[in-house]
Amino acid sequence: MSTTLDATHGTQLRSWVASANVAGCDFPIQNLPFGRFRTAGSREALRIGVAIGDQILDLQAAGLVAHNDMNALMAATPAERQALRQQLSEGLREGNSSQQAAWTQALVPQSRVEMAVPCQIGDYTDFYTSVHHATTVGKQFRPDNPLLPNYKWVPIGYHGRASSIGISGQRIKRPQGQTKAPDAAVPTLGPCKRLDYELELGWFIGQGNAQGVPIAIGQAEQHLFGVALFNDWSARDIQGWEYQPLGPFLSKNFASTLSPWVVTMEALAPFRAAFERDAADPQPLPYLDSADNRSQGAFDITLEVLLQTARMREAGEAPVRLSATNSRRAAYWTPAQLVTHHTVNGCNLQPGDLMGSGTLSGPEVTEAGSLLELAGGGKQPITLPNGEQRSFLEDGDTLILKGWCEREGAVRIGLGEVSGTIVA
Amino acid sequence: MSTTLDATHGTQLRSWVASANVAGCDFPIQNLPFGRFRTAGSREALRIGVAIGDQILDLQAAGLVAHNDMNALMAATPAERQALRQQLSEGLREGNSSQQAAWTQALVPQSRVEMAVPCQIGDYTDFYTSVHHATTVGKQFRPDNPLLPNYKWVPIGYHGRASSIGISGQRIKRPQGQTKAPDAAVPTLGPCKRLDYELELGWFIGQGNAQGVPIAIGQAEQHLFGVALFNDWSARDIQGWEYQPLGPFLSKNFASTLSPWVVTMEALAPFRAAFERDAADPQPLPYLDSADNRSQGAFDITLEVLLQTARMREAGEAPVRLSATNSRRAAYWTPAQLVTHHTVNGCNLQPGDLMGSGTLSGPEVTEAGSLLELAGGGKQPITLPNGEQRSFLEDGDTLILKGWCEREGAVRIGLGEVSGTIVA
Repeated sequence: MSTTLDATHGTQLRSWVASANVAGCDFPIQNLPFGRFRTAGSREALRIGVAIGDQILDLQAAGLVAHNDMNALMAATPAERQALRQQLSEGLREGNSSQQAAWTQALVPQSRVEMAVPCQIGDYTDFYTSVHHATTVGKQFRPDNPLLPNYKWVPIGYHGRASSIGISGQRIKRPQGQTKAPDAAVPTLGPCKRLDYELELGWFIGQGNAQGVPIAIGQAEQHLFGVALFNDWSARDIQGWEYQPLGPFLSKNFASTLSPWVVTMEALAPFRAAFERDAADPQPLPYLDSADNRSQGAFDITLEVLLQTARMREAGEAPVRLSATNSRRAAYWTPAQLVTHHTVNGCNLQPGDLMGSGTLSGPEVTEAGSLLELAGGGKQPITLPNGEQRSFLEDGDTLILKGWCEREGAVRIGLGEVSGTIVA
Repeated sequence: MSTTLDATHGTQLRSWVASANVAGCDFPIQNLPFGRFRTAGSREALRIGVAIGDQILDLQAAGLVAHNDMNALMAATPAERQALRQQLSEGLREGNSSQQAAWTQALVPQSRVEMAVPCQIGDYTDFYTSVHHATTVGKQFRPDNPLLPNYKWVPIGYHGRASSIGISGQRIKRPQGQTKAPDAAVPTLGPCKRLDYELELGWFIGQGNAQGVPIAIGQAEQHLFGVALFNDWSARDIQGWEYQPLGPFLSKNFASTLSPWVVTMEALAPFRAAFERDAADPQPLPYLDSADNRSQGAFDITLEVLLQTARMREAGEAPVRLSATNSRRAAYWTPAQLVTHHTVNGCNLQPGDLMGSGTLSGPEVTEAGSLLELAGGGKQPITLPNGEQRSFLEDGDTLILKGWCEREGAVRIGLGEVSGTIVA
């Protein structure tokens, strides 16, 4: 594995940016995630920043990069990236008064900016890494054959649409599409009636590989840049009619939404976890297996789904939790395995490419990452605290994903949040 | 429809570039396709050129564009594009001695350049428009249910990989991947044993649409820039094991190959055809239907597949024809219908996006666009004139696709060719 604990993870470290030292803050000095921003409401060129507390350090203004090309920054070697992290960590550290004097002018309050998709996403791949999600959804489509025979051998994935990936705060126009009721003779065109979200993590590629040259499992994490929250909005009724034999298409590509801050592999180092499989499950084929991957290839990221309906918003009620899980409990494959599988045939990955984890549902029903699962395919609507019921998303609903890492002996870091609102 | 016959299609037109006037030439003055090139063996920035006979007119050197950004050129309105075509047609016309004097220095022999992928492809979608291909292949996978119920209603498509699309002349490294024999207990990793090609057309998007704003069928062709030949290499054994439930992935994304010249919608205007369906087939839903689409939404493009094995190459033998068909006979959906269906849910298309037609197999077995079909899924190997047999592609095989349009009362134009060679 490419990342190990170093001084930048020190639990005693504090920043001269006071808001970074507040307990529960998503962006303490141990995090240092990357994003792109501009002054809110402006048409300025996007700038690269690092979140620290409630501020952003503008990397070019701070003299840390010569350009604002995030994809170029992502293409850096892990050593170059770690050197930049070291500079950031030292410069933002409490007591570094000379850097504080120099960098204070490079700070921008997060409240004054609008964020953008973190980089130019060349190709976006979505995986299907939660065996619990695959089983529950499989039961709805194929009651007698929920989990297909390839699932425990192949990290199932497919290509998604890059152009329609937006940033947190996106307004999602309810898509229209073809659907066919089971008893109808012919399909019809109309607005989606089974609109859903999917709780995912989005892993960004750092260094790419040349076409024809697979990435071995031992090198895979050196090609990962970091992770963000990802909502893969899904039109279940359109999906049901269109998806055979080539997979989901219009049921997915109307929109997907990312959180703005990419938490780096370096920041995730304290939150590694063993990659655990049930004794009954097959071991991965050798190309997907390594001692490192088994002992520490997974990540301990807590994930939460919240909903605020239009009625709740009007009544001033806070969003309510729909479910929560942990990536370690949900994912059957590690990020390194996804990189290695994706390239085993020679497929070339490029800096800024995005790999969705697929819906991260844990083993319990309260850990489900979609309404399709929580509401039993529409048959068991959930009841919200204000009495409203939901089988699928309704117009005006705001769906929020949150993620964070916390562990004894480490400073909590957050992924922030991604929200999106359905409009008619 | 956005393109009609005008003076640039005149059958009497000749060019002062003599090679453009040779009968059977792919690039007469009526064609004027766009591509990107650089001096062979150099590392020059790519330039935009228009093929004329055996030459290329360098558009910037000719003073016709201020940049070499093909995607920006593709984003132009159809009116702007038609104005550029008019300028090209008049300037290259026999008798225009002043333009000949000015532009001769902007000509580069095709023999001295290397071509590149025509533009930056943001997203690539592959469709499945040949009902004959879908039926024949469906029979191999599902003998009792070859054509799925959605086929005649939904223009089936899925997202493909943009990063691994290369240009004619590409060397295709035989991919490795997971496969499982029907009688095996577990899968294994190894080189693909059922490597195939797919004869496709690749339609390039011109003007894009805003997210959330579908493109109506009547406007669809205004968003198309042009067409090239496209080979969607396919690893059938990897596909068989991985493709359920989310569709093909590693079986496709190791490589796809484009021909270098994009023939514009304007150049195709004389080769429009009625969009014909069998009387027994359902009419398209209203959003996919229009009088124009029915009367002239299809295109009359002859397509040919050729193979040259290593043994043939060593013996100095020319490639042999494996099959031939016509896009009009093969495609169940028109390009305009693909654009409209792709955006009906609000998905945004961008200039330079690529839409593959899917394998274009005509109704007869001699018109099949893949070896999977020609050799009955490996059960009826084809025998080549030199006695060699093929069920699938072998190392050293060069596969060539050609395409052209010819019709009484119009000047023949060609799409050129796309070739690719399998290496171990």
